[in-house]
Amino acid sequence: MHNSLFKPMNKQELIAQIQKKKSFLCIGLDVDLTKIPTHLIAKEDPIFEFNKQIIDATHHLAVAYKPNTAFYEAYGIKGWQSLEKTINYINANYPEVFTIADAKRGDIGNTSTMYAKAFFEDLNFDSVTVAPYMGSDSVEPFLAFEDKTTILLALTSNKGGLDFQGLKTDKQEVYKEVLKTAITWKNSENLMFVVGATKAEYFEEIRQIVPNHFLLVPGVGAQGGNLQDVCKYGLNKDCGLLINSSRGIIYAGSDENFAKTAQQEALKLQQEMEQILNENN
Amino acid sequence: MHNSLFKPMNKQELIAQIQKKKSFLCIGLDVDLTKIPTHLIAKEDPIFEFNKQIIDATHHLAVAYKPNTAFYEAYGIKGWQSLEKTINYINANYPEVFTIADAKRGDIGNTSTMYAKAFFEDLNFDSVTVAPYMGSDSVEPFLAFEDKTTILLALTSNKGGLDFQGLKTDKQEVYKEVLKTAITWKNSENLMFVVGATKAEYFEEIRQIVPNHFLLVPGVGAQGGNLQDVCKYGLNKDCGLLINSSRGIIYAGSDENFAKTAQQEALKLQQEMEQILNENN
Repeated sequence: MHNSLFKPMNKQELIAQIQKKKSFLCIGLDVDLTKIPTHLIAKEDPIFEFNKQIIDATHHLAVAYKPNTAFYEAYGIKGWQSLEKTINYINANYPEVFTIADAKRGDIGNTSTMYAKAFFEDLNFDSVTVAPYMGSDSVEPFLAFEDKTTILLALTSNKGGLDFQGLKTDKQEVYKEVLKTAITWKNSENLMFVVGATKAEYFEEIRQIVPNHFLLVPGVGAQGGNLQDVCKYGLNKDCGLLINSSRGIIYAGSDENFAKTAQQEALKLQQEMEQILNENN
Repeated sequence: MHNSLFKPMNKQELIAQIQKKKSFLCIGLDVDLTKIPTHLIAKEDPIFEFNKQIIDATHHLAVAYKPNTAFYEAYGIKGWQSLEKTINYINANYPEVFTIADAKRGDIGNTSTMYAKAFFEDLNFDSVTVAPYMGSDSVEPFLAFEDKTTILLALTSNKGGLDFQGLKTDKQEVYKEVLKTAITWKNSENLMFVVGATKAEYFEEIRQIVPNHFLLVPGVGAQGGNLQDVCKYGLNKDCGLLINSSRGIIYAGSDENFAKTAQQEALKLQQEMEQILNENN
């Protein structure tokens, strides 16, 4: 699978997909064996079977899928196999969909290159999430893959998110320093940023620093963020937002019709997004 | 392999091992197929074969092994299998050695729990490195494993390390805020901290904040750090240091005697450490 050119996906293709589907929904594939419908457990690969049905039922409503690697690593080699089967299934059947490895990696130069190879070449994801703590040379090896997207954590939506991201330097908060610095790096046009939705009021200031980049926004739904608020401050001329929902969609149902139930929840969000896109052209 | 109690390893056992071996050496198992001796490439699992020989030749000189997960993930499922075989080999043959999964993980609450399960339960490592950017609730799920050690990035030795870690808040640099805050978290006695050796002059201030915790110090050797300088400011009453060397040891030789050559390099560091320990009781 070492074929980074197999499925190039750039910003223009993502925007075209948003316009066609009238959606900027990303579905988080955070699959926990204790939460999936019990009738799947007897299958040979319950995680892949679950993902396959969710993807088949929602691919026309979502522009991106985002498996969080933690949920796969927790099951060891078997989990890694489920992740590989899932990304291969998406790439083979729905190549127009943008894929995100939510891995939050980041290490010293040559080691980050190994992570980039893992997700961009071996698994052939379009993008990977990266943590900024180690600075420029921990992120640049990801950006060196010019046909791929690097999604940098900026402001996260969890309880402790502001512990360090919110520290004030003599100029501004750390997360703003991350944004301002990151856009000076080589190939920074291939960056997106993670910005948590529970802090919609911050989007206005963030858009002053990064007016043109896409923002990946977790935290709508289960984590309490509001779609209308995020869009009010976060939308740009290209849409510029990917709104992620995981549990609210994939665990909406727990019986044999779970994929249909997930589809209905995805449809609700897509329709809300369509209305917002129409109101904002 | 879900057996977190199989091999408990606490701080006292690590200290006892340091006293016995007169060493505080950690060997980084960052195995790159393009750098290992060519005669190994034909083996069924060259990475594991390489590690096995390095471990057999150095286990009496080192108190810890630290595979960096990036190097294994880059080879997909096969790489993950090599990692599993390596940790199982250490646990079965040298259970006294402290094991570190250098994974630099960190995510929102329940997701960090999945990572903790991956490394502490599924793979049965004694410790894992964690990135602090997402704050308290991204680290606490690791600390909840009370018989395991969580090693938090504080100050890293790479070129971009100070990009964000070195930002000055109205009180102090971000990395010091990380240290000060982390030691207030529940089970913080199970923390260690990563502190890069290229910045030996910082150890004095760091020891004022965390006098008792172990520091994992990469960057000695290939990255330019000096062992004497680090020890001058970093040692505490328990030793309190784990000094990592990766490339300088494991790639010292490139022929069929590579393990013996690695042993000689490890021995040099161990002897230097023994002298330092004797001088400092």
